[in-house]
This record gives sequence, C-alpha cells and structure tokens, in this order.
Amino acid sequence: MDIASVIGLVVGTLMILGSIVVGGKSFGALGGFVDYPSIVLVGGGTVCTMLICYPMSEIIKVMGVTKNVFLTKQKDILIIINQLVSLSESARRNGLLALEERIEEIDEDFLVLGVRMAVDGMSPEIVDAIMRTEMDAVEGRHALGKSFYDALAKYAPAFGMIGTLIGLILMLANMNPETIGAGMAVALLTTLYGATAANFLFLPIADKLAYYSGRELLSMEIMVRGVIAIQAGENPRVIKQKLMTFIPPKLRPEEEEQA
Amino acid sequence: MDIASVIGLVVGTLMILGSIVVGGKSFGALGGFVDYPSIVLVGGGTVCTMLICYPMSEIIKVMGVTKNVFLTKQKDILIIINQLVSLSESARRNGLLALEERIEEIDEDFLVLGVRMAVDGMSPEIVDAIMRTEMDAVEGRHALGKSFYDALAKYAPAFGMIGTLIGLILMLANMNPETIGAGMAVALLTTLYGATAANFLFLPIADKLAYYSGRELLSMEIMVRGVIAIQAGENPRVIKQKLMTFIPPKLRPEEEEQA
Amino acid sequence: MDIASVIGLVVGTLMILGSIVVGGKSFGALGGFVDYPSIVLVGGGTVCTMLICYPMSEIIKVMGVTKNVFLTKQKDILIIINQLVSLSESARRNGLLALEERIEEIDEDFLVLGVRMAVDGMSPEIVDAIMRTEMDAVEGRHALGKSFYDALAKYAPAFGMIGTLIGLILMLANMNPETIGAGMAVALLTTLYGATAANFLFLPIADKLAYYSGRELLSMEIMVRGVIAIQAGENPRVIKQKLMTFIPPKLRPEEEEQA
Amino acid sequence: MDIASVIGLVVGTLMILGSIVVGGKSFGALGGFVDYPSIVLVGGGTVCTMLICYPMSEIIKVMGVTKNVFLTKQKDILIIINQLVSLSESARRNGLLALEERIEEIDEDFLVLGVRMAVDGMSPEIVDAIMRTEMDAVEGRHALGKSFYDALAKYAPAFGMIGTLIGLILMLANMNPETIGAGMAVALLTTLYGATAANFLFLPIADKLAYYSGRELLSMEIMVRGVIAIQAGENPRVIKQKLMTFIPPKLRPEEEEQA
Amino acid sequence: MDIASVIGLVVGTLMILGSIVVGGKSFGALGGFVDYPSIVLVGGGTVCTMLICYPMSEIIKVMGVTKNVFLTKQKDILIIINQLVSLSESARRNGLLALEERIEEIDEDFLVLGVRMAVDGMSPEIVDAIMRTEMDAVEGRHALGKSFYDALAKYAPAFGMIGTLIGLILMLANMNPETIGAGMAVALLTTLYGATAANFLFLPIADKLAYYSGRELLSMEIMVRGVIAIQAGENPRVIKQKLMTFIPPKLRPEEEEQA
Repeated sequence: MDIASVIGLVVGTLMILGSIVVGGKSFGALGGFVDYPSIVLVGGGTVCTMLICYPMSEIIKVMGVTKNVFLTKQKDILIIINQLVSLSESARRNGLLALEERIEEIDEDFLVLGVRMAVDGMSPEIVDAIMRTEMDAVEGRHALGKSFYDALAKYAPAFGMIGTLIGLILMLANMNPETIGAGMAVALLTTLYGATAANFLFLPIADKLAYYSGRELLSMEIMVRGVIAIQAGENPRVIKQKLMTFIPPKLRPEEEEQA
Repeated sequence: MDIASVIGLVVGTLMILGSIVVGGKSFGALGGFVDYPSIVLVGGGTVCTMLICYPMSEIIKVMGVTKNVFLTKQKDILIIINQLVSLSESARRNGLLALEERIEEIDEDFLVLGVRMAVDGMSPEIVDAIMRTEMDAVEGRHALGKSFYDALAKYAPAFGMIGTLIGLILMLANMNPETIGAGMAVALLTTLYGATAANFLFLPIADKLAYYSGRELLSMEIMVRGVIAIQAGENPRVIKQKLMTFIPPKLRPEEEEQA
Repeated sequence: MDIASVIGLVVGTLMILGSIVVGGKSFGALGGFVDYPSIVLVGGGTVCTMLICYPMSEIIKVMGVTKNVFLTKQKDILIIINQLVSLSESARRNGLLALEERIEEIDEDFLVLGVRMAVDGMSPEIVDAIMRTEMDAVEGRHALGKSFYDALAKYAPAFGMIGTLIGLILMLANMNPETIGAGMAVALLTTLYGATAANFLFLPIADKLAYYSGRELLSMEIMVRGVIAIQAGENPRVIKQKLMTFIPPKLRPEEEEQA
Repeated sequence: MDIASVIGLVVGTLMILGSIVVGGKSFGALGGFVDYPSIVLVGGGTVCTMLICYPMSEIIKVMGVTKNVFLTKQKDILIIINQLVSLSESARRNGLLALEERIEEIDEDFLVLGVRMAVDGMSPEIVDAIMRTEMDAVEGRHALGKSFYDALAKYAPAFGMIGTLIGLILMLANMNPETIGAGMAVALLTTLYGATAANFLFLPIADKLAYYSGRELLSMEIMVRGVIAIQAGENPRVIKQKLMTFIPPKLRPEEEEQA
Repeated sequence: MDIASVIGLVVGTLMILGSIVVGGKSFGALGGFVDYPSIVLVGGGTVCTMLICYPMSEIIKVMGVTKNVFLTKQKDILIIINQLVSLSESARRNGLLALEERIEEIDEDFLVLGVRMAVDGMSPEIVDAIMRTEMDAVEGRHALGKSFYDALAKYAPAFGMIGTLIGLILMLANMNPETIGAGMAVALLTTLYGATAANFLFLPIADKLAYYSGRELLSMEIMVRGVIAIQAGENPRVIKQKLMTFIPPKLRPEEEEQA
C-alpha cells in the first residue's frame, strides 16, 4: 500500500479544515463551509457531465482502477532485470525449452506471456509484435484512465463557476445590504468545492496514474527487450549491461561496476 | 441507445434548475434566469461565428453526426475478433475464395470491404493501403466533428463574456444605486449561458466524439490486422492471440487461457 | 462566394449592435460604445505589434489571402477523382503521352504540373518528390496565414486589457463618485473591442483558413496519388477505389457500389 | 534594417502614451504612470528570475542576437536558387572541381561549407549529414532564443501580478477611504507594466525570432537540396524546378513558366 | 557553482521584500505579509498533494537533484570534442585497443562507457544501442525532475487560490466594515505566496532543469557520434568537422577555419 498517498490525502484534508477553524477562530466556522445544494450542484453536475462524456461501462471500469493509486506496490525493476538475466543464463546453458520449467517462478503475467511464446518456438518477430501490441493496449487503457480524471478536473471547477454565477445572479437580483455578504459567501462555496476537488483530488490522481503508467511501460519495455535478447541467444553479460542502462547509475548494484 | 448520456443530460439539467429554485427559495427565481436578448446574443453570436469558421455544408453534416453521441451502440470488439478468427479458420480450411459466401453474415461495412478485396485476389499491400486510407479518412472526419464542438465550446463562452461586458458598460454608464444589482445580474446571465453551454453540452459532446473515434479506429485496426493475417494464411490460433491483446486481460474469455 | 461566411459576419454584427440597443433601451446607447481613443489604442496597438512580429512584405501578402476566406469556392473532390480516373483510362489505352492533349481540360494548376511531368517522362520518384515539395510549400504558406490571424487574436485582447488597465488607473487616481461609473464604462470598452475582434473576427478567420488548408491539402494528396498511380499504369478501377476512400461513404456515387 | 519593426515599436509606444494623455486630459497624467518601486519590482524581478532560469553566458549570448530582430535583412530565396542553378550548370559543364573558383562569389557561409565539401570529394551522405547537423544546431540555437523571450513574456506579467497583490494587501491592511483609489491605481501599475512588456515587446520579439528561424531554415533546406543535387550531377533544369517549388507560384519568375 | 542563479535568487528576494518596505513606508509592513496559517495551508497543502502525485522514493530522489540547479558546472562541449578528436587520432594510429590506456584521462562516465565497449570489440550496433538507451534513460529522469517542479508550480498557486477562497468566504460570512480590509488582505496572502513560489522558484527551476537536460543530452549525442565514428575508423579531420557543427560558428576555434 502506498502509505505516502494516504498520508498526503489525510494530512492535506486536515490542513484545509484546520485553516478554516483557525481563520474562523472557532470549530463552528466549519459549518459555514457545508452547503448541501452547492455540494449537489458541483458533485452531481460533474457526475452527470461524465455520463455524457463516457459510456457507463467505461466509468465503472475506471472506478475500479482508481484504488490502484493508493494500493499499487511499485515494481522493482532491478528484480525484473535479475530474473531476465537468470533466465538468459538458463536458456544459454540448457536451451530455450529449459525455460518452461522456470515459468512457475515468474510473477509478471506479461513476462510469462513472452517466455511461453519463446518456449513455444514462435518467431522473434511475432513475439515482439504480440508483446508490443499488448504494451500499446496497456498504454491505451492507462491513457483512458488519465483522461477520465483530467475530465473530472476540467468539469468540477466548471460547475463550481456555474454555481458561483448562479449564486451571484440570485444575490444581485435581490440585493440587500444585510445579506449580501452571506450570499456571496455561499456563492463562492461552489468555486471552492470545484477548485479543491480538481487540485487536491482529480489532478493528483491523474498525475499519479501517468506516473504509474510510465513505470509500468518501462518495466514492460525491459521485459520485451529481455525476452527478445534471450530468444536471440545473446550473452547474459551483454543482456545485463543493456537492461541496466534503464536504471539510474547510483542505483545499479556495485558488482556490476566490477564485472 | 446510450441511456447514460441521456440520463446525464436530463438529471444534470434538473440539478442546475433545482439549485436555482433552492437558492432563490421559489420557483419564480427561474424567471430571473431567462433573458431573451441574452439568449439571442450568446446563441446567435455563436452560430454566426460558426458560419464564418465552417462552410454551410460542413455544419449540416456535423449536425447529423451529433445524434450518434446519444444513439450509437458501442461495438463489441470481442465479437469482431471471434468473427475474424472464424473467417481465418474457413480460409485456412477451404481457401480464401471460400470467404465469399460468408460475406453475407458480416455486419461491418469496413470488414466486408477488406474481405471482398482479399477474395478478389488483390495484393496484401493494396488491401492494407486501401483499408488504412479509409481509416485515415474516418479519423479525419471524426477529428472534424470534434473540432466543430471544440469551436462551439470556445465561442459560446467568448460571446458570454462579450455580452457581460456590454451589460456592464451599459450599467456603469447609467449608474443608479437602485438598479445596479439587477443590471449586473442580467449582465452575468450571458456568462452563465456561455459557461453552461460550453461545459455541460459542447465539451462533453466533443469528449464523447473523441472517445467513440478511438473505439471505432481500434475496431478498424483489429479488422485490418485480421484481414491481412487471414490473407497471409496465418494460424487461426496465432491470429486470435494477436487480436486478443487489444482486449483488457480481465475481459478475455476464459477458454483463451486454457487453450 | 461563400455566402454563409458573409451572412454570419453581417447577422452576428447586427446581433451585437441589437443587444446594445435592446439593453440600453434606445439607439442612442450605441454612442456610448464608440470611443475613438480606445479604438485607436486597440486597433493601432495591435497593428504596431504585428509590424514588430512580421516583415511588411509578409503582412501585405497575408492581407491579400484573407479575401479567400469569403470568396473561395470549395473544390469538389469527386470531380477531381473522376478526372484522375478518366485520365488513367486514357493513359492505359493510349499510353502516357496521350495525356498531353488532355492537359488543356485540367483546371487545377497542381494537377497540370504533375501530369506534365509524367508526360515529360520524369521518374516517378522525382514526380512524387516535386509534387510533395509543392504541397509542403503550400502547407507552410497556409500555416503562416493562420499564424498571422492567431497573432492578431492574441494581441487584440492584450491591447484591450492594456487599455482597460490604463483607464482603471486614470479613474482610480482621480476617484470621483459621480464619474466613476462612466470612467469604468470607458475603461471596459477596450476589453470589449479586443474580445470582439479576437473572437468574432480573427479566430474564426484563422479557423476557416485551417479548414481550407486541410481541404486543399487533401485534394492535393489525391492528385499526387492519382498521378503516381497513372504513371505506374495501375488499373483505373483500382485507382478509383483507392481515391474514393477519401470521400465519406454516403457521398460516394451509387454506381461505384454496383461496379 | 527592418524599418517596419522600428516603426511599429515607436508608433505603438506613442499610441500607448497618447491614450494616457487623452484619457487623463493632460500631459501630467503620464506622471501617474511612472512609479519607480513598481518598475524596479517588475523589471528587476523578471531579470532575477531569468538569472535562475539560464546561465549568465546564455543570457549575454541571447542579448546579442536580439538586435537581429530589428536589423536582419531578409534573405532573398530567389537569388539563392538562381545561384544554385548557376553553380549546377558550371558543375555539369566543367565538373565539380570547377566550383572551387566560384566559391569566392558565394555570400552564404552555409552554402560555402556545402560546396567546399562537394569540391573536396566528400561522399554525398557525409555532405548531407554535416549540413543537416549544422541545420539542427542552428534550429536549436534559434529555439533557445525564442524560449528566452517566451520566458520573459511569462515572468514579466507574473511579477506584475505579484506587485499588484503586494500593493492590494498593503492598501487593504490600512484601508483609508481617501487614499484607496490612489493605492489601487499604484497597485495596478505593475500589472500594466508586466502586460505591456510581455505583449508589446517580448512576445512580438519571440514571434519574429520564430519567423526568422523558419525563413533561415527554409533557405538552408534549399541549399542542402541544391548542393546534393549538384553533387549527383542532376539536370540544372530539374534542379531549378525542384527548388522553385519552395517559392509561392505568384513570385516565380515568368521565364520559368515559358521554359 | 552557478553564481548567477544564487545572485538571482537573493537579489530577487530582496527586491520583493524591498518593494513591500517601500510600499508600506516602514519595515513593519513586512509583518503584515507573514501569516502562519496561510503559510501552512499553501506549503503544507502543496506538499501533501505532491505526496499523492509521486511515491515517496521519487520525491526524495528529486530533492537530491535540485541542488544541481545551483551547483552544476556547465560542461564545455569544445573540450569533449577535442578529446574525441584526440582519441580518434590515437585509434587511427595505434588501433582501437590503444584507447584502453587513455580511458584513465576521460572524465565523463558516459564516454568511458562508450570507449570501453569499443575497446571490448562490441559491434557498433550494440555500442550505439546501449549508449542511446542510456541517453533515453537520462532524458526520462530529467523529464521526471522537470515534471516534478512543474507539478509544484501547478499546485502551489492552486492552494493559494483555495486559501484565498476560504479567507473570502470567512470574511463575507461575518462582514464587518471595520475588519473587511484586513480580512481581505489576509485572504490575498495565500494567492501571493502561491504566485511567488510558482513564478520565482518552481517554474524557474523547472526551466533550468530543462535547459541543463538539453545541454547534457547534446553533449551525450556528441559522445555517441564520436565513439561510433572512432569505431568506424573515420578520418579525425572529418570527425572534427562533423562534431564542430554542434558549436555556434562564432565559438569555433580559429585554427578550424584555417585548416
């Protein structure tokens, strides 16, 4: 579980609430920031707009992906490289078919797919083509997820602004020196809701999905190159050197330097 | 029919109207949000600007496409893949010419085009070239439709702002403490119209067109690859594996895993 | 002549003026929207900035192109395709040289260029290269024209804002409860001028130039492919099928389906 | 010297100053637009930010390039093409070595480089590679210059806003009905400075650098293609036709049509 | 150490503080610009949002890279080119293996990697592939660093706006003619903090990282081309000419012109 994301979300929320309490000089000030019609307008309006943008099935699918933002464990690329190097040593010593019995120990579905195709004797071109199509498909699905949160981050502030405009128009049409302040305060609430939802929730989630997508595709790229190199019977040492270039120099294990 | 889009549109409209009624504490408040000159300025100004941007024929064409946003049934990519695999089995067993009698059962015009060219004995290069030109043309038409709604979403708020500026200037030139509130309320209406039209109608439609375009092109890409693979006489099992990569792993049928 | 653009421009202008008359409840209200110093600042400032951005010769050239937005007749791609197919039939029957006497009947300079080079016996590579260089050059000139109007649409509102800031500063420095309204009204005029010029004139013209550029390049692409196919002696029926893919299915002539 | 740019700068400045004099109804109004602390904040803040963005050496280099915006004489592409065609005729008649004695008459350093390499008998691949690397390098330097002015145009209004925020906060903290107007006027000055500097100076310069870069690279592209064609011993007439495609049809010399 | 960046940061900060002191007419005015809850909200909120966007490990890594903005010494590309030319002369005279003893004198790790692979007799394709993979990886890491500061520059002003909205709503809900000015002053502080942090700190750092990345990749490109040319046994004079094209003509050493 990605504890930092959860901490960021919880502490950030407390800071926003805390700044209201400190600024309003009482816990009661929080009450002035809850206005149900405003919540319904911004939340409901954004959801309804999303229903126009995406088919229902897609929305449900993306919802399921969102928990990854907080739950996904980052893959250790070093472990993947070491496994590929180890597989290449087996293949060099005992032939490609010897990899069959090692498929069990591979965690990554994508690597299992590649190794199995290599064992099955498919041509390197087809293995490469199938693995890269899978990568394109994964990239497309990630891009869809990101575009979904980008859309939320676009429509939530828009409905915040629509709500504020409605509030201002109502207030101006019945201008009353005594209630004008309270009226404008309520009108601004929807802008605050929209801005907070977009900048503290939707945009960060979109950013994190983009980050994860980059990491995932990098690890898939390494697996593709590794499997193709194994199939071509390349020297395990050369394979290791090639794949290690994907890791920042400082993180490369020391023995690599000495080798 | 895409029921979600219609629900989104209807419920969202009710929410906006509802928030006016609740905020204004009476149904009469809705009256303050209808100002015919403002509607004419924003609506008419936007339409006139579109007439400058696009030739008439193009505008009529795009209008016809818009209903797809609410009516198009999403294609099931799995069915297309199964059909392609089934076609490849026929072709392998009985030769390419045997596909002629199966053309009847194909729903997709684009696939009919590809299979017919294959049956006609055109070279794979030409089949690929013609199918991809068709894809480029479809992509171009979709992009034009999206650009049309993007333009609407750009000019509607612009005319909203122009209307508000006109209203403010009129109000300021004849400043009167008693009517200043009502004047500003009316001035802000055009901004509200423009913002709502752009964010609740035009941008979501542009987003959905982009989404449908992506799906359509994906299914066309699958058909092109399928037809080319059939023409090349590839193994139906390999074809299936290649094409299945376009589907998210969770949605792939179970038997595929066992095969 | 593109009547829709002219109608859009005229009706849109009337709507803006009409909304001022209706909002101000008298034709006299129009007078409050004319302020010569403001017009000079926004118009002159924008022109001066363009003089810094582009050399004089370029500005004059683009001015000449602008009338196309309202005057250009859209090319009928179907006619071009039919002409290419007809030319290919002549070439197939009587040889490439037979095209020489048909050059007279071709309207498009670009197609004349291609056919003449084919008749002159230039190699297909050179014909393709020269035609595509011409296309690149046309694309570059169109892009320059669009960038010119995009620049106008960027600087006009900027000078509108500069004018409003100047007006606000003047008004605030000599604040007088009686003239503050009129002062702000005048200050806002430059913003209105800039926003209207950008959104009702410059951006739509830029959009239309982009649209025409796309159409023009599409018809040029068809001509290049047609000439190359003719030179290669391809079957007229295949040429027709290839080129027809550039036209939306619904607009394709019926006989094509029956052929 | 590019007289239009200078005229644009001078006349534009006079217009801005004039609109202040006319709006303020006296030359004394200009005094209200000069506030030294505001000038120091916007000017100094922007310069300091640039020092963080770019190393000192780069800043000095770009300063030196800026005078080109006002001083560069536009290259006449037609002259370059004619020179290339003339060179190709010499080379065809007397061999590539004969170009050595004509190097003297070439003004363009880049063309001298190409012709000298051709005379030296370098292979066409190397000549092409070296000339294109030089082009890439020129493009990169131009892009750096443009990015520099884009950065100025980004940070100047930002410091204008920072200055206005500081002014507003100071004014609001010590609100005094009598000085509030003057306080806000001064606060807005920094926004005016930033907006004017960005829109009337930095953005136009960036636009002009981009324009010059495009022209320069176009003329270099023509030179590369010309030199390669000369080296390949192509027909001068074909070379002329190829290179003329880079010039708009209307500007092509008449004799070309007759040839 | 990049003294200009440090000067820019220090002088810029003094200018901002100075403009407050001058504008407020006393050093005490600075006190009005320090509000701890506002600092906590903008600073803390931005940090918490970054925790949602990036995993902890990545944040720590980027922090470490930031000092480079102020400390990195710019590489002298001329020295790298001279070293490559000198290496190519050794290789030409005494063979590739002779480079082994010169590896000691090379400072750049990336060049050491390339030369060592060349000495080890790896094929040019593999040397090129490994060096370019390393370049891609470096580019990716730089892009990640830049995206990090771009995210900071996006979220800091967003939290500034959220803070100002909260302040405004609190102030409006309890409107009091005597404290309204002070309330709005405090509300605007968060916007000032966000704008200053973004425009004076995060964006310039992002810009400088992008600048350094460009320089670094340029020097790596030169090294790759140099090593490949050395491996191919190219003439040192040709190598020099090729690599010198990466340097602006004015900075090229004189002797090059005379050679």
